[in-house]
Amino acid sequence: MSDATFADLPAPPYYAVVFSSRRAPAVLDSDDGYDAMAGRMVEVAATQPGFLGVESARDVEGFGITVSYWRSLADIAAWKAHAEHSVARERGRQGWYTHYELRIARVERAYGGPPAHEGPAC
Amino acid sequence: MSDATFADLPAPPYYAVVFSSRRAPAVLDSDDGYDAMAGRMVEVAATQPGFLGVESARDVEGFGITVSYWRSLADIAAWKAHAEHSVARERGRQGWYTHYELRIARVERAYGGPPAHEGPAC
Repeated sequence: MSDATFADLPAPPYYAVVFSSRRAPAVLDSDDGYDAMAGRMVEVAATQPGFLGVESARDVEGFGITVSYWRSLADIAAWKAHAEHSVARERGRQGWYTHYELRIARVERAYGGPPAHEGPAC
Repeated sequence: MSDATFADLPAPPYYAVVFSSRRAPAVLDSDDGYDAMAGRMVEVAATQPGFLGVESARDVEGFGITVSYWRSLADIAAWKAHAEHSVARERGRQGWYTHYELRIARVERAYGGPPAHEGPAC
């Protein structure tokens, strides 16, 4: 994969943390430390056991989806308990987001394209 | 949930289709029918058996993540086989996207916030 925004993952199974969030309108254009913290969290996550990759997109209106991929549920639990991550989550709850949803899922099939490395039909 | 961009989902388990894509630069600002087709696909998907909801974000550089949620793998397979969806996918492969990745996952835990309806720790 040549595009750095796509996570280069092993074959399933592995786990995904799907984090959907809406940024608070008042802070969307201000330097409230969010970008720095978000970047730092990706850096720290990447050093954690079982981290496989992350993909993220946020639209101009502040709605975003970040999906991080992990080897196991235990790795996800350990990342949740990480001190610096806990501080970031608390700041998120206190003002960066008006709402968020988090879903933890077991990836069972995966394929990509183009060109010709599309996998089996689902 | 008051925000229409968040999917209002039942309690897990259910299934997620995580579709990450990068739009082709040449078409990003042009009316190539993509927005109309993307909107139409959400409309049609919402009428399919087992559809639970969808969330989507695309950044200004053309990288996007769309997550659709389904009751079962059989519902996802049926949606994949849907004629109109097949035509849209083929158009996507032929020019709308420079690359995409698709992952099918079983959602096992879910919670949201703020305010105070955060669920059990993972």
